Order: sequence, then C-alpha cells, then structure tokens
Amino acid sequence: MPIPATDDAFWMQHCLQLAAQALTLSNPNPRVGCVIVGPDGQVLGKGHTQAVGGPHAEVMALRDVQAQGHDPRGATAYVSLEPCSHHGRTPPCCDALVAAGIARVVAALPDPNPLVAGQGFARLRAAGVQVQWGVGAVEAAELNLGFLSRLMRQRPWVRLKVAASLDGITALPNGQSQWITGPAARLDGQAWRARACAILTGVGTVLHDDPLLNVRDIPATRQPHLAIVDSQLRTPPTARLFEVPQRQVLIYTACTDAARQHALQARGATVVAVPAAQGARVNLAAVMAHLAQWPVNELHVEAGATLNGALLAGDWVDEWLLYQAPTIIGGGLGMAQRPQPLETLAGVQPLQVLSHTAVGDDGRWLLRPARRTDWLAPLFPAHGAAERPDTEPS
Amino acid sequence: MPIPATDDAFWMQHCLQLAAQALTLSNPNPRVGCVIVGPDGQVLGKGHTQAVGGPHAEVMALRDVQAQGHDPRGATAYVSLEPCSHHGRTPPCCDALVAAGIARVVAALPDPNPLVAGQGFARLRAAGVQVQWGVGAVEAAELNLGFLSRLMRQRPWVRLKVAASLDGITALPNGQSQWITGPAARLDGQAWRARACAILTGVGTVLHDDPLLNVRDIPATRQPHLAIVDSQLRTPPTARLFEVPQRQVLIYTACTDAARQHALQARGATVVAVPAAQGARVNLAAVMAHLAQWPVNELHVEAGATLNGALLAGDWVDEWLLYQAPTIIGGGLGMAQRPQPLETLAGVQPLQVLSHTAVGDDGRWLLRPARRTDWLAPLFPAHGAAERPDTEPS
Repeated sequence: MPIPATDDAFWMQHCLQLAAQALTLSNPNPRVGCVIVGPDGQVLGKGHTQAVGGPHAEVMALRDVQAQGHDPRGATAYVSLEPCSHHGRTPPCCDALVAAGIARVVAALPDPNPLVAGQGFARLRAAGVQVQWGVGAVEAAELNLGFLSRLMRQRPWVRLKVAASLDGITALPNGQSQWITGPAARLDGQAWRARACAILTGVGTVLHDDPLLNVRDIPATRQPHLAIVDSQLRTPPTARLFEVPQRQVLIYTACTDAARQHALQARGATVVAVPAAQGARVNLAAVMAHLAQWPVNELHVEAGATLNGALLAGDWVDEWLLYQAPTIIGGGLGMAQRPQPLETLAGVQPLQVLSHTAVGDDGRWLLRPARRTDWLAPLFPAHGAAERPDTEPS
Repeated sequence: MPIPATDDAFWMQHCLQLAAQALTLSNPNPRVGCVIVGPDGQVLGKGHTQAVGGPHAEVMALRDVQAQGHDPRGATAYVSLEPCSHHGRTPPCCDALVAAGIARVVAALPDPNPLVAGQGFARLRAAGVQVQWGVGAVEAAELNLGFLSRLMRQRPWVRLKVAASLDGITALPNGQSQWITGPAARLDGQAWRARACAILTGVGTVLHDDPLLNVRDIPATRQPHLAIVDSQLRTPPTARLFEVPQRQVLIYTACTDAARQHALQARGATVVAVPAAQGARVNLAAVMAHLAQWPVNELHVEAGATLNGALLAGDWVDEWLLYQAPTIIGGGLGMAQRPQPLETLAGVQPLQVLSHTAVGDDGRWLLRPARRTDWLAPLFPAHGAAERPDTEPS
C-alpha cells in the first residue's frame, strides 16, 4: 500500500522546498523537486533539478535512494512537475521511476508544453503506476513562472526592479543614484538577479553608469545573461559589462551599421537586429520573442525611466520589484516614463501587492498587475482535468 | 488620602483620551483633558477643552462633578497640561481647582510658554495642593504638537499631505489628478484637514484645480482657515474657495498691486505683504512667522510640486502625510520639486516612519525627519525639572 493521499499536501510542500533549492541553479530548466517516500512514511530519497545537462529531480532522488541503500519498490514519488517522457539531454524520468518500481506518482503540475502535456502521466499509468496531479500546483507554478511563461506565453516573465525614494526618484538630476537605498536592499537585489536567466537594461544605463550588471557579493554558480536594448548601437565596446565571464551579452538593435556590429561582436556580444517600432525604437515584442527562444525564463529588468516606461506602456511588466527608501528627495529622474503620457487616470493599472517587507532601512514591494497569472489556469486541476481525460486523478 | 501615584499613568491615559476629543474643536487652544478621581478611585467628573472662548478642561470636569452631585474635596485632578494661572478669556483654572478642594493635581506637561510655565503649579502648591507633572508627557505633547510648536518655535507644525502613486506621480502631465487614491483615503484626508488650524496651498493649485480646500463629508464644527502663497496675486476673485463660510482666507504675496489687493479684500481675503525671497517668491519664513501669530497650530499643506519643493528645501516640513496608491503611472507631475535640485544624495534627509497603514486600497504613511521633535525636550521631566525647581514633583 502506498502512503495515503491525505499526506500528499505535506510531502508536496517538502518537495517544493527542494525545488526552491534549484532557484539559481537549473535555469533555463524548471525548478523541480522530488521526494520518494516509502509505504511507512519514511523518506527514502530526495533531490532537485541540477544545472543544465545534469540530472532531473526524479533521477537525483532515485540516486539518493540507492546511495542510502533503500528499496524504492512500492514507494510514492512526489514531484513538482510531470516527469518527462522524452529523450532530451537526459533519458526520460518516467522510465527511471517505472524501472525503480515506484507504485505511485503525485505531481504538482502537468508539463506546460501542450505537445507533451500528459504524456508522462500516460506513460506511467501504462506501466501500472498510480498517478495523481494538482497538489501544490499554485506554489509549483509560482516557483516556475518564468519557465511556464516561456513555454505557454512565448515570452519571459518580466520582473522590473527599481530602487527609489518615496517620491519615486531613482537618481538626482545630475544622474547620481549611489545610493538611494541601503546595503541590505542592494544585497537583496543581487539575489533577485541571481534567479533570473537574463538581466535586461537599456543603452542609456550602459552609457551613463557603465555598470557590470552581474551577480556579486553572494554565492553564484552561474551568471545571468545580459540583454541590452540599444536601437542605435551606442554600447561602447570598451564597456565594463564585457568583462564579466560566464555569460552572454545580447544587444538588440535597429541599427545596421556593420562596423559597429563587428566591434561589439569582437567583444563577444550577440547583436540581434530587430525591427524598429515607433521612431527608431527597438520593437519590444520582437525582443521578448527572441529572449523566450534564447531561452530566458525570468527576465530581470534594471533600466532607466525610458526603457522602464516603454515596458510599462507595452504592458510587458509582469512584476515590479520596488525598493523604496524612506525619504523624499524633491526632484530628479523618475522610475518610468511612458513614450506617450497617459491622457486619463482610467488608463492606470492597479497593482496587487504580493508583499511589502522591510529590508534594512528600506521597504521592498513585490507587485503585479491584477489577474497577471490567469494564463496559468490550464495547469490547474479544475481546468486541466477536463481537457486531459488521460491524466485525471486516479 | 488622594489616590496613589502608582495609578497615575492609568488615569492620565484616560485624560489623554478626553483631550483627543478636542482634536477638531479647541483650535487654536490646546487639546486638554481632565479627569477628577475620588480617593476611592471613582471618577467624579471629566471634561476637555471646548471651542475658543469656552471653558477649559478643568472647568468642564468640575462642572461635571457638580452635575453628578459628587464632592470634589480631597480628589485628584488629572490634566494633560499645566492649569492656567492667568485671566484670559476664562478665569484661572488653578483657582477653580483650589476652590473645589482638589487635594492633588497630576499634569502631563508644564505650560510651554516660558513666561507662565510653572506659575500654575506654584499657585496650586501655594494653596496647599500637591502637584506632580510629567506623567504621559510625550503623548500629551504629540497631541498638541501644533500648539507647542507655535509657542515654543514661533512657527506652526507643518504637515504636508500628498496623494501619489508608487512612482511618486500626483497628476498626469495634463494635470488630471482625480483620483489617484481611493475614496477611503480621500475621506481620511478630510479628518486630517479638520484637525488643522489652517490649510496652506499655492496659487498654482488654485488656478489649476479651483478647489474649495474645506472640510466636507465628515462632521465639522469649524473650518480651518485657508492660506495661499501667491507671490504675484494671481488668485482670481471669482475662485470657489471664497464661497466657503466660517473661515478666513489669507493670501501671502510679494505683489503690491493695489487694485488686485482690493479685489481680493473685497472677497473677504486678508492680503499679507511679505518680503520676496529669491526671484519673486514669497519668503516662507515670513509666512510661517505670520501664521504662528495668526495663530495657527497645525498647518495642513495641500499644494503642488513647486510649493511642496520650496517647503522641503527650506526644511519647513515637519511631517509627511503620504497616501500611496498601489499603481505605477509612468510619468506626470511629481510630489515635490526643489527650487534648486540636490547635487548629492548626501543632502537627502532620512525620514522616520511613524506609521504605514492600509486605508482602503491605498497605503498611508506618516513620516517625520529624524529628531524632528527635539525642541520638546524642555517639557519633559528629566530636562524641565532641573530648570524649574518650583515645579519639581512633590
């Protein structure tokens, strides 16, 4: 007898904690955790997704079972995403679970790729494994918004980070911005960079601040890539950002000047020509589509008011990460400047406050436009079960 | 035997609650409460300051004792401010307490007027009444920051109210500002208007919004006066603000055009010529000194970025009342624009967060520059007792 379904929520929480350990590790693969629990409720093994090309969570957990000398036969495997059924860089996890004699699989989410969704569950059932899914689905989806957005919306999950005063000032009129928020907020910001597949900035920030835009001051096994919106290819080949190892630099431009392109390519940059939108601006839809293909799950934006405003106006911002210093500066550069100002306040989008937390002397807001994750609905049982009869809870 | 000193803090809290009932009533007199407690701990009577010209808290409490048929002899009177010893619009409260046979007086604060401080206590002691003060002093001072500021700093307590988005926008570029914050925040704002002696605005707001700037939608027995900073006397005599009864309109100007002055005076305005500061701006120090003389305790500012910025730059803002809507607008008019932008972030003043409260869908911040009430120190026992030997706790 596998362990009873009444314990599923408990074990799935444990599974999600494991998945969270892959937060800065598994990109662009999803953050997945797996716990294998024996019929008597003993944890036999556990694991989470490794870096790209490394084993998936299920295989890590099965290896852990073996390393501990446990017998996985008859056990329940909790996994936060439908086990894969296809040969990618690694063999199918379904086959590994079946071969190990797992009796029951409880998954949080089905595979978000409509082409393979349910195939893993079907393959397990065909081999006589009990399958259930939907437990912890919302939490699992939150942990993988970027991955899910890339597969389901063909665009990254865009998180826009900004540090400002209470009057919304990010820098003095002379450009000085170091530092409006304190050291705790800046360190916290590094953790958010580290979980992203890529950081996005604008050429204005590159020209003005000559930033590195890398992960530093915290342990990091990988660097997020850096994408620059640079319609006129003004990024200097001497910019410090080219000195960061372990990452790629993508420059999105509407400029066809071959000499400038070559100079940047010689520094290792990938120059991507995208159609221009109004004026000579880069078409952000093309940028987002390209980033999703690259592939980028979470896109962490740190830019100036111009690019921020364009992202806001184009409704590209999925989430605001706002550090707010308890001060009023009284003039300077703002957080976001739309290309065309609003004509009426009816056009203002209310934001849902996910959290408002003290970080040192500053506050950290996490905000989303209302109903911003409605596109996840097909992943949740009430919706998905009806569409996929072969994956109904057993 | 009067009731023991160990109960003083409890009764003073009750006394302060009574004082708070005078919040919108007693201006420009202080908000004072009085509780008279018999030797057995029974409340014999209580009261608080009435409207100007009406009885003080002590007299209200003594009348209440009488009305209830109690005997005040031997009782303790708790009062949040030193009882007055001089004949003003009402006879001295000290004499009334002595005549009633009160055995002990416990006061929160001494009189802030250095000319009369301690005279009330001395008069009571001379009549054989036990006197103690300092219990609940900080709370009593908070309730009367405006009154105390006027007497001790010769300037009002300046509370600047602003309603903005998270990016600090108070209006669209086209001026539209109705409504960034929701109905609960707007109603809450009325309560803060009601407690002020006067509202301050700039002529830009008058010209653009033609506001009433009165107390409405909540019960109000009086209207705060309205002060307008209008260097060039551009306030139209047809402005709606002249239609509000029960208040005076003060216009501070550097303009000497007699025709314009007369047109505004004909509408009931008091035109006050003040020296100009830089350019043709009105000298704010002169405005504040005049308002303190008027007399104004709490000055509630609702103005645009120009006047707000001038007040910020001149360090006139004692307190920010910031309503923040959970939205990011992406460009528009800011909260405060200094006449000269800051050159370095070292000049930014950190604010102390007194409270951050949900008001409907919005947030309300109450913020003060650090150490903003240090000038109150002489009112607190550790400081004051040493300076006034005749008012030492008995």
